[in-house]
Amino acid sequence: MRGTVIHAAGDIRLETLEDPRILHPTDAIIRTAVTCVCGSDLWPYRGVEPTEAPHPMGHEYVGFVEEVGSGVTSVKPGQFVVGSFATSDNTCANCRNGFQSNCVNREFMSTCQADHVRIPNAQGTLVATDGVPDAKLWPGLLAVSDVMGTGWWAADAAEVRPGSTAVVVGDGAVGLCAVIAAKELGAERIIVMSRHEPRQALAREFGTTDIVTERGQEGVARIKELTGGIGADSVLECVGTAQSMQQALHSARPGGNVGFVGVPHDVAVDGQELFFSHVGLRGGPAPVRRYLPDLIGRVLTGRIDPGKVFDLTLPLDQVAEGYAAMDERRAVKTLLRP
Amino acid sequence: MRGTVIHAAGDIRLETLEDPRILHPTDAIIRTAVTCVCGSDLWPYRGVEPTEAPHPMGHEYVGFVEEVGSGVTSVKPGQFVVGSFATSDNTCANCRNGFQSNCVNREFMSTCQADHVRIPNAQGTLVATDGVPDAKLWPGLLAVSDVMGTGWWAADAAEVRPGSTAVVVGDGAVGLCAVIAAKELGAERIIVMSRHEPRQALAREFGTTDIVTERGQEGVARIKELTGGIGADSVLECVGTAQSMQQALHSARPGGNVGFVGVPHDVAVDGQELFFSHVGLRGGPAPVRRYLPDLIGRVLTGRIDPGKVFDLTLPLDQVAEGYAAMDERRAVKTLLRP
Repeated sequence: MRGTVIHAAGDIRLETLEDPRILHPTDAIIRTAVTCVCGSDLWPYRGVEPTEAPHPMGHEYVGFVEEVGSGVTSVKPGQFVVGSFATSDNTCANCRNGFQSNCVNREFMSTCQADHVRIPNAQGTLVATDGVPDAKLWPGLLAVSDVMGTGWWAADAAEVRPGSTAVVVGDGAVGLCAVIAAKELGAERIIVMSRHEPRQALAREFGTTDIVTERGQEGVARIKELTGGIGADSVLECVGTAQSMQQALHSARPGGNVGFVGVPHDVAVDGQELFFSHVGLRGGPAPVRRYLPDLIGRVLTGRIDPGKVFDLTLPLDQVAEGYAAMDERRAVKTLLRP
Repeated sequence: MRGTVIHAAGDIRLETLEDPRILHPTDAIIRTAVTCVCGSDLWPYRGVEPTEAPHPMGHEYVGFVEEVGSGVTSVKPGQFVVGSFATSDNTCANCRNGFQSNCVNREFMSTCQADHVRIPNAQGTLVATDGVPDAKLWPGLLAVSDVMGTGWWAADAAEVRPGSTAVVVGDGAVGLCAVIAAKELGAERIIVMSRHEPRQALAREFGTTDIVTERGQEGVARIKELTGGIGADSVLECVGTAQSMQQALHSARPGGNVGFVGVPHDVAVDGQELFFSHVGLRGGPAPVRRYLPDLIGRVLTGRIDPGKVFDLTLPLDQVAEGYAAMDERRAVKTLLRP
């Protein structure tokens, strides 16, 4: 089969790889319907995370079950399935507590920009749809497997409530999905920090009420202006840098909440500052599995359309261009068709 | 009147000071019924916080209203009142959100180890009891003004729920009150990290089910052993050092909560570690005012008796000995009678 391999920063290749096969009774093999490039894939692409040796890429997927291990009874060959970038048995204590992305048997997906993918923990990870959804819904379901699930988690971790004010830091695909989530969870006012007009437009389409283009202390001052002087109830941090985390923490009102879903790079939170702010802080890899049935339903009924974050669609063999377009900010997110 | 003044590390004196008087229409003057020494008073006493110039001490109080400013209608002379170490107007947005200890007009109390005290923001800060409570209940009500309110906040911030498992880090007065709070909020298992037998005994009396004497990684391992391998639902951090914060963060289960109420000294939280733990973190100066009516009721009905944390009672003129006894760990907490 064909699969994406990174060789070094900036060096993405589609190569002929061995077909994946069942290694454990809990595995399934899927034929990829659509896959995509994630903002976090740009960390190694840009050399911020080193690439010691060539390795496959991709952790977002929807597809058709081709084969299941002997321990998998929840899905069967031929079904269309949605999963999560983090696999989970969905039975351990952490899964039962709703933190499937911290499953004791978790394996992170990493080979999904390919024709076929082995899914560990398939029983607990994959959710089959009723019948095969119309292909025009595949991008939305693909988004659910990562960015939409992550945006939802940001809003959940930041405790967005009906009538509340939410700030979204970051206008990438996760930030845009976080707007959808904040809207669905009832936020009355949704403020997005963004300097990119096409992204602002999509943010508004998703429910954003205010755009803030200022950053740093000026950005914080503008948020305070918009929130009665005290800050926002909920802040959804969707970037992962020290600067974005500061922006988020300083934009929340006393007693407000920051949900942080951008993987932190060189971020340290000052204990005393957090203390006197009264701000609650929670983040992590999104427990997408917890939200899958609900989010799949919202996509299938057309209530939400997170597939709109894909503004570039390429055949899988142009995956390198898919990375380049995102790196150069010519695209928010690239969808790949095997 | 007589009031406590710190001159330098280790140098506490009871001196004759000017009687406090109404400075603002929102002030009240109270005659102190009982006051006490706080664990946080030991920071300057030990020289960890510098004392640049002599200044009064004390932020815990219950007493009798002697005089009120023209803007104070909620309490009147003669009434017995309980307040908070942080004053609040109880009308601003932060107060309405339940974070009165972040009131936009907040003033921290700092002159309470004295015969008389001026209370700023008296209208929003003081809660009068029905009649004068029996003097044997004064210590419990005094505890409510700080340590019991703070222990309650630790349990609230750590989201203690009925049937859950709570770990309390710290066996000082706040930690012991946190045990009371965890018990009242329905924790089924309450694990206290303590090496001091008299404190362990009181912790057990308050509802502790397990004592852990190990610290650091051994302490974490022991907590994991006691919690099915994953950690506790809620951890109540009641110390404020880098070590105790690490202990707390590592003792919580994935997706659990740490409430931190010890004022952090040189504490930095690693963003990536917090991220992958899924632990929620919230702390700050306790919004005691939010809890006052409820906690006063629990003390007056005898449901809780946080006054037991006072294991040394001295006349106010022996305040210096009160500090020394706590510094040398001969006492958990010293009550002072003017």
